[in-house]
Parts: sequence; C-alpha cells; structure tokens
Amino acid sequence: MARLVDFTKHPSKTLKVGNGFALADTDPDATPGFSGMKADGKALLADLDGKLAEYQEKLFAESRFGGTKRLLLILQGMDTAGKGGIVNHVMAPMDPQGVQFKAFKAPTPEEKSYDFLWRIEKEVPAAGMVGIFDRSQYEDVLIHRVHGWTPPEELKRRYVAINEFEARLTDSGTKIVKVMLYISRDEQKERLLARLDNPAKHWKYSRGDLDERAFWADYMAAYQVAIDETNTEVAPWHVVPANKKWFARIAVQQLVLGAFADLHLEWPKADFDVAVEREIVERS
Amino acid sequence: MARLVDFTKHPSKTLKVGNGFALADTDPDATPGFSGMKADGKALLADLDGKLAEYQEKLFAESRFGGTKRLLLILQGMDTAGKGGIVNHVMAPMDPQGVQFKAFKAPTPEEKSYDFLWRIEKEVPAAGMVGIFDRSQYEDVLIHRVHGWTPPEELKRRYVAINEFEARLTDSGTKIVKVMLYISRDEQKERLLARLDNPAKHWKYSRGDLDERAFWADYMAAYQVAIDETNTEVAPWHVVPANKKWFARIAVQQLVLGAFADLHLEWPKADFDVAVEREIVERS
Repeated sequence: MARLVDFTKHPSKTLKVGNGFALADTDPDATPGFSGMKADGKALLADLDGKLAEYQEKLFAESRFGGTKRLLLILQGMDTAGKGGIVNHVMAPMDPQGVQFKAFKAPTPEEKSYDFLWRIEKEVPAAGMVGIFDRSQYEDVLIHRVHGWTPPEELKRRYVAINEFEARLTDSGTKIVKVMLYISRDEQKERLLARLDNPAKHWKYSRGDLDERAFWADYMAAYQVAIDETNTEVAPWHVVPANKKWFARIAVQQLVLGAFADLHLEWPKADFDVAVEREIVERS
Repeated sequence: MARLVDFTKHPSKTLKVGNGFALADTDPDATPGFSGMKADGKALLADLDGKLAEYQEKLFAESRFGGTKRLLLILQGMDTAGKGGIVNHVMAPMDPQGVQFKAFKAPTPEEKSYDFLWRIEKEVPAAGMVGIFDRSQYEDVLIHRVHGWTPPEELKRRYVAINEFEARLTDSGTKIVKVMLYISRDEQKERLLARLDNPAKHWKYSRGDLDERAFWADYMAAYQVAIDETNTEVAPWHVVPANKKWFARIAVQQLVLGAFADLHLEWPKADFDVAVEREIVERS
C-alpha cells in the first residue's frame, strides 16, 4: 500500500482568518499545507474516518456521564460550493445517533416573525452531540446585505448578536468550527453545467441559483464584512479553498479533528466495579 | 477479487412474518437464504452501499418536485440486539440531509401527558425523507405489558391505534419496514460481557439492562403478541435472526433495498430545456 501523504502544516493554521485577511487574495485552487494530489487526499480522508468516528463516540459517551461538551460545524458557501459533499463525505462516518444535521432554507413565515436567531437556537447541538449547519445565522447577514433586505444598522446589530450568541454557545461547552467553502465564479459555472449534463443531477439545478450568481461580487463583499465582524477568538473563521472538492474535504476533516482534539475527550471511567458486574452478568 | 455471494431467497420472503408465526421457533443463529460466511456478508453489504445511497437520493429528489413518498424503518429488539449497529453500518451511506433518525428513550413527563402516539407523530419522515426509529411506538405495548404498567384493555386499544396510525402513514406515501432483531438470551450475555471487557464500551453498560434481561421470557411473550396484533398487510413484521451481526445487517439492507424498489423511484424529469439552460449558464 502506498504511503499516506499528510499535511505539512495544519489547516487550523493555514486557513484560519487572521488580521488583515482579504477574501480577494485567497486562491480557491490552492491546497495550502498539502503537497499530495487527489488520490492522496482521498486516501487520507478514508484513513481518518475511523478516528473521526471514535472522537464522536467519545463525545457522546461523555455526555451520558454528565459531560456538556459538544461540537458545531457551520458550513457557508455559494451554491455548488460543496457543503452537501462535506456532510456526505467527511461527516458521514460518525454515528447518526450522535449527529444533529440542519440545512437552513429560506425562513418560513413563522420563523420570519421572530428574531433571526430564534430558529437557530432550536437547532444547536445537545450535550454530547455533533451539530452540522448547512447554512446558518450567517444567511441573515449575507443574502440580506446583498439584496438590501435589512438596513445597515440592523445588520450591525446582527453581527454583534451573532458574536454574543456564539460566545454563549462556547461558554456552555460548544466548540464551534466556522467554515466558508470558497470557490471561484468560473468553478461555479462548471459545476452548474455538470448538473445540466447529468440527468441524475437535474433535480439539483435551479434557475434561482443563477439569480444569486449574478450578485457574485456583492456576495464576496458581504462575506468579507461578515467574516471581519464575526471573526472572534472563540469562534474564528476558516476560509477553505474549495475549487478542488477533495482538498476542501480533507481540510474540513482536519479542522473537525483538531476541534475534537481541543475538547480533550476521554472514555468515561466506569462508575462500577468491572469484576463485580462480570459476576452478576455471568449469573444472570 | 472474489465473487460476491448473494441471497438465494430474498429476506422479504424468508423473514416476513406469516400466519402461525412463532417467535419461539425462530433460530437466532440462522442465516436464511444466505449460504455465505461473514466475509461474504461484509462484501455484499459494502457492494450495495452505493445502491442504497442512490435510492435515497432519488427519493429525496422526487420530493423536490412534489413527490410525497417516504420510507420508515422501525427497529425493535432487546438491549444489545444491534439496533445501533444497523443505523451505523447499514444506513450510514445515505445522505444525512435525507435521513431523520430518532432514538426513542423513556418518555419525558410532558410526553407521558399525551397519548402514546403524540411523540411518535412528531418524528415521522417528511416527504422524500428516510426515517429511522431506534425503538418506537412498540415500546408502549412491550415494556408496558411486561411490567404491567398498562392494563390489558388499554394495550388492546394501542394495538388497534398502531395499526390505524401505520395505515394512515402508508396512505400518505410512507413505506414502512418493521424489523425485530432477534437475539438469544445467551448471546445477550456474551455482548454484555464484551462491553465490560472493553473500557471503550463501559459507557454502554448499565445495570438497568440486567433488570430487563431478567424478564426475558415475558419480553418474548410480549413481542409475540405485539407481532400477532400488528402484522398487517401494509406494514408487516420481519423477524431478523441477529446473533450474527453481519447477517442481521445484510438482511436489513435487503429489506430496505426491497422497500425502495417497491416505491418505483425515478429521477425527476427536467421541467426545463437543458440546452436553453446550458446557454444561459454559459453566458452567466
């Protein structure tokens, strides 16, 4: 078996947004910290499936003994950026019992009648759970800014509210991983055309995607502002070059593995005498 | 690569409960319709992962174009019977976006204040979704019968209510697959001891499991009655020999694949002119 190619520099370092970050300077084709090719990426991804699943089980197990830790992966990106693929190919090895997945669509009239965080709060992960948000509270400062649905002062209130919300989640035991999957406008065109070329993917095609595509530059500006305003110490942003799907997947896998490691998870210590219980089971 | 061993007789035939079914006559070690060994089972399971995922995507896709079909897998069985393993090893290849998983635990005080189907109704799959119940409405006629928490006339009402409930789900587009994972009392002992022998599994061990184990014969009687009372044409029971985990997994996979096939799923036809859309995307 060929030797695995590993990252030389961890994505939590290379992809974490720092001071003076400019989305415009990010290369969506890049593979920072990884010198391997697609096959190497796929091999690395598969190799770490088991580790990810073990972390998730430990997190779940801790909560059965009173642990309050949890993990929340927030995925943002333009249409076709690969959010669904991350869920399907990176997070799938985890036990569905321990995963809360939520895809946030356009809000319902009921949801719209509340503060924008109302529907988000209902979906945050319970103790021991891994939450995955496919889109999130950030839609309320992205599409809203692009189309001018929300005035500037309300957008400002929302950035602050998001930071307070995420700080509160963190204080109650949640490790937040925020990811923007960054593709180029040309790459999106290729992916839309690929959907049209495959009858099994026609259902994913929507003319509406083109409407948003027309506002590409405005979206990038909205992302830049949102990232600037909400790139906090407890919940920093990671901008993941995503023109190469395989790279985006191993990068996000690394970010999630790193977040799990930060949680310092341990198998719960037995609160019973194993030998005594063995006896009881044997006799039962 | 070795040739795949396939079922010679489909589990939807061999494991489906028929007239005069007796749980006591079922051999939990059997592998009906399958002549292969463990390695053959694992190979078959892996081989059909992709087919299962494709079915699930088709189901989801149909619902985006107005389809109302859905699938509900109901898993019942004694502790350690392998319900979680089915979720993790059989159903995991499906896109989490299209799966609604629910593990029913002991009801909360709020849940208890309603009819027993109240909390179940809230978890039925939406159009296009695959629902998975780890335990279900059947707990309300199993543990309740075993411990006498519910008088006989109320149990009778519940069997009827369950049949009406499942008929209504079926009428509104749901294909229901009911599975009892059948292990022997000795096999449960082995699995409990195995949990005690592995520190990474201690968190799964609970003295409370032994309390229920002591009522094994009563549980088997309760299952027999529940199966007799709720084995309807639209939602028949399947009793899956589960002493061999690998067999239970391929058997349930076959049952789910068969249910998907019965739904006659098709990729939605494009409601747009592909050539026209290609032009528009190219120019966008």
